[in-house]
Amino acid sequence: MDLKSAIRSIPNFPKKGIVFRDITTLLLDKAAFKQSIDQLENYCKGKKIDKILGIESRGFIFGGALADRMGVGFVPIRKKGKLPAKTIRQEYQLEYGTDSIEMHADALKPGDLVLVVDDLIATGGTLSATCKLVEQSGAKVIGIAALIELAFLPGREKLTGYDVFSLVKYDSE
Amino acid sequence: MDLKSAIRSIPNFPKKGIVFRDITTLLLDKAAFKQSIDQLENYCKGKKIDKILGIESRGFIFGGALADRMGVGFVPIRKKGKLPAKTIRQEYQLEYGTDSIEMHADALKPGDLVLVVDDLIATGGTLSATCKLVEQSGAKVIGIAALIELAFLPGREKLTGYDVFSLVKYDSE
Repeated sequence: MDLKSAIRSIPNFPKKGIVFRDITTLLLDKAAFKQSIDQLENYCKGKKIDKILGIESRGFIFGGALADRMGVGFVPIRKKGKLPAKTIRQEYQLEYGTDSIEMHADALKPGDLVLVVDDLIATGGTLSATCKLVEQSGAKVIGIAALIELAFLPGREKLTGYDVFSLVKYDSE
Repeated sequence: MDLKSAIRSIPNFPKKGIVFRDITTLLLDKAAFKQSIDQLENYCKGKKIDKILGIESRGFIFGGALADRMGVGFVPIRKKGKLPAKTIRQEYQLEYGTDSIEMHADALKPGDLVLVVDDLIATGGTLSATCKLVEQSGAKVIGIAALIELAFLPGREKLTGYDVFSLVKYDSE
């Protein structure tokens, strides 16, 4: 199946001029959802992975299912103030201003091999901040996997040096 | 394994007097995470399920993994304003004031058999609102499954008439 056909495009969301790629139609389609997790699992084959990180909140759906398939632990990367224990934090740039993400300080051990999962690679800001959290813990990012890549944005540039994998690419808005 | 031993208790989060049950330590422990999804899958055995609904955002982790195990579609229930297409909405009570959750209007078909998944059953407000969204769509809730049940709160009362299943119960704060 062409997974792109299961993704719905919604013009002017969340604001005018943006075409939002809506994965809820893919999740709803059991064959498309299964295929997306199959393909993520194939990407993982032969790799040594200790932990899968999922980024709030759509990254939790794919990351949770993939961690279950791979039989590894799952680490949630969350917006500021959501995690209850001691955290480490990274800021990243938004179009205007900054935002930040957090991970529990004891989530990773030095030397852990980590796969980062999200639904979307856009400008790469959140993903890059997530990789910094991993490295701050002394762990190593062995790959970044996403359902969708907006290839007309500079995500891959921002993530230079990492192994970046995506299932569906959009070359223009 | 006693799953409760994999859950961390954090006093005074998110505010003084509350003991927060932190499932991130369970997610991190690959054996505990696997066992929790195994037990949810066992609960599903023999039931006819068309869709699994997960509630933002920790419900996405368990709901996503369970939908993948069961080979069914997944529907995200989200906070107001997050879903890009036409939604239906339900309000629910907070300690002070109200909040609301949304589901895409076309997510369920009349007659769909639906399992609702979240990490926690507390007062039952969000879960009850979710069941109303399902019924508003003409679909049927065949069960509500959660990792944790705070049995000293009136969640089950609020959810009377539904089949409620939880993996770990706390009888006091």
